[in-house]
Amino acid sequence: MSQIITLTSDFGLQDHYVGAMKAVILGIAPNARLIDISHDIPPQDIMAGAWVVRNAAFLFPPGTVHLVVVDPGVGTPRHPIALKVGDQYFVGPDNGIFSLFFDEFEYEAVKINNKDYWRQEGLSKTFHGRDVFAPVTAHLSNGVSFDEIGEPIEELVTYHWAVPIADKDGLQGWVVHIDRFGNLITNISEQLFEEHIKKKDVKIYVGNTMLKKIVSTFGDVEEGEPAAFIGSSGMLEIGINKGNAGQMLSVDKGAQISIVLQK
Amino acid sequence: MSQIITLTSDFGLQDHYVGAMKAVILGIAPNARLIDISHDIPPQDIMAGAWVVRNAAFLFPPGTVHLVVVDPGVGTPRHPIALKVGDQYFVGPDNGIFSLFFDEFEYEAVKINNKDYWRQEGLSKTFHGRDVFAPVTAHLSNGVSFDEIGEPIEELVTYHWAVPIADKDGLQGWVVHIDRFGNLITNISEQLFEEHIKKKDVKIYVGNTMLKKIVSTFGDVEEGEPAAFIGSSGMLEIGINKGNAGQMLSVDKGAQISIVLQK
Amino acid sequence: MSQIITLTSDFGLQDHYVGAMKAVILGIAPNARLIDISHDIPPQDIMAGAWVVRNAAFLFPPGTVHLVVVDPGVGTPRHPIALKVGDQYFVGPDNGIFSLFFDEFEYEAVKINNKDYWRQEGLSKTFHGRDVFAPVTAHLSNGVSFDEIGEPIEELVTYHWAVPIADKDGLQGWVVHIDRFGNLITNISEQLFEEHIKKKDVKIYVGNTMLKKIVSTFGDVEEGEPAAFIGSSGMLEIGINKGNAGQMLSVDKGAQISIVLQK
Repeated sequence: MSQIITLTSDFGLQDHYVGAMKAVILGIAPNARLIDISHDIPPQDIMAGAWVVRNAAFLFPPGTVHLVVVDPGVGTPRHPIALKVGDQYFVGPDNGIFSLFFDEFEYEAVKINNKDYWRQEGLSKTFHGRDVFAPVTAHLSNGVSFDEIGEPIEELVTYHWAVPIADKDGLQGWVVHIDRFGNLITNISEQLFEEHIKKKDVKIYVGNTMLKKIVSTFGDVEEGEPAAFIGSSGMLEIGINKGNAGQMLSVDKGAQISIVLQK
Repeated sequence: MSQIITLTSDFGLQDHYVGAMKAVILGIAPNARLIDISHDIPPQDIMAGAWVVRNAAFLFPPGTVHLVVVDPGVGTPRHPIALKVGDQYFVGPDNGIFSLFFDEFEYEAVKINNKDYWRQEGLSKTFHGRDVFAPVTAHLSNGVSFDEIGEPIEELVTYHWAVPIADKDGLQGWVVHIDRFGNLITNISEQLFEEHIKKKDVKIYVGNTMLKKIVSTFGDVEEGEPAAFIGSSGMLEIGINKGNAGQMLSVDKGAQISIVLQK
Repeated sequence: MSQIITLTSDFGLQDHYVGAMKAVILGIAPNARLIDISHDIPPQDIMAGAWVVRNAAFLFPPGTVHLVVVDPGVGTPRHPIALKVGDQYFVGPDNGIFSLFFDEFEYEAVKINNKDYWRQEGLSKTFHGRDVFAPVTAHLSNGVSFDEIGEPIEELVTYHWAVPIADKDGLQGWVVHIDRFGNLITNISEQLFEEHIKKKDVKIYVGNTMLKKIVSTFGDVEEGEPAAFIGSSGMLEIGINKGNAGQMLSVDKGAQISIVLQK
């Protein structure tokens, strides 16, 4: 069984950037299996990348190395880093791209400063994906240890999503991601929801729409009707049965969602 | 030689959905080779998915398992199914996505209701791609039999494209797909064409354009001119030599095409 | 270690075309490793394809076979060809797609006219990617020699980018590619720049903007400011620190860039 390496980036697929990273990896780890998670992260949108990686990475088999390059700060002094989180490894810039792990999981981190594991010729200042992250990913996949690739680092750049507000009136959260189908994914976790709302009567306000209950899935509402439910990522979502909630409710990322308890 | 698993979906690549399915597959079938057919099927467009799968799947080596998830009815009571068609296996929802096989091929079908082969924890109601279809695909690829994953099912949801009309005046069909290059692919098969038209004189009407003959390829017309020919999928196509027929002729999917015999 | 085959095309991923090529390859070379470089080359944009291949291909391990299909002339008499450039192999149409190699590298070329290595049934005139290029790529990957697939060909279709102009006033070049991040990549190579400009004082004009110096990377200018630097492909680039130069400077592909020496 070969080692798995996943790739996530905002490089798109119209340029040579993803192909170049794969070439460098295969030169060092010729038997690694390359699995694309996404290269369509919106350009330089660190938190969009963080969300995708958080939801896909931990489903992979133990020992998988995840290369994550959403790196608006390439060419500035931000560090390249590697993380070990449970039995998964991650390589990318220290710019917040791994923020969503830090509250949920224990981790070890190193600053990748041993240039022996970087690309040896034609090192650029603006394509660390090819010249730093790809080769280090390949070496980790080959079994090189954290001690060898760099030094422990304690303080990592961390972004925080707005924290949902729970009070006697209910819960207030925000739309943190809108998927390809227009489903509105909020920062209200199943756990938070269970703690504060559970089966109480509520009204849910999002955009200009009001929903009167939480259902378990689309099939519980009519076609074309909005539904609020705990989605497959463990967060409260608003979707429309066979429709696009983002478009039909005119809601953008960052919009508020209020769950108001009915007395 | 490893088993091949192909993936086709309307998930796009900006979300974590495709990566999550691949992770689940590799956890169960670590040596399977994952080949993407397309994740850019227009959201919830079942027949667009059916067309792509019909044209790619049967070219794969025997024993390939094809995971196909265009599933607007996820979270409703539609069944998950698996099909065996010749030496190819298919896994997806019973929503018409396999419709284009039913007239052309013999098949066996099972309803996937043995939950032993589903994902065991964190089962969602809205992401059967990850929780039902991916694990069953992986188990089939590992050699688990149809008997084990479910029970035979007879009636499958079937959509039919409009059937072309052949009469004494000629043939009337419809544009069923427009490809990235703007080629108009119709539901008039080479066989139907041979039966009714063959080398007779015709006029072909599509949009506001009239063509006076069928050619064998683009090279038979000038650059910028429209050409009617039997395309690589075995269907009558209208294309423009080094141009985009959909745009230049202002024709959309669903448009009529008439082949009128000249007396 | 399996043989690597890369794929580059303008097929996009919404149709079955890429999947069909992969299926045909795997039928002939079941152990080949398929690596996508890009399928998002703008439709029929030969030089955009040439640029992507030139920048990714030579990073791959020796013996890699590169399938390159940007083929607006399919169905016309243009030849299918294969090239050996150093330790890399290439298969595609003789339409200029390999132009960027010819000045830089030695190569051998054959016209692929031995139909024994083409697809044997259902040969189309409009999908040589599936019927000619994919099978020949797979056979080359299996070790079939150039002698077997065709005959040597001397004259190849070659496009030339406009050549930068160097004179006593400085250098004038053109924007030949704009990447997903809006970076303007010019046809002024590092070597040409070193020869004529090096560390002399310059003013750089592009669009309506004037830059007063060459820096080594984004981090040398403020956020939102334009920077001129030698990019990761070895060419002069204009980018904006955390911004999109193409959009913010309203510059399109083909725009002039002038580097004027200050006396």
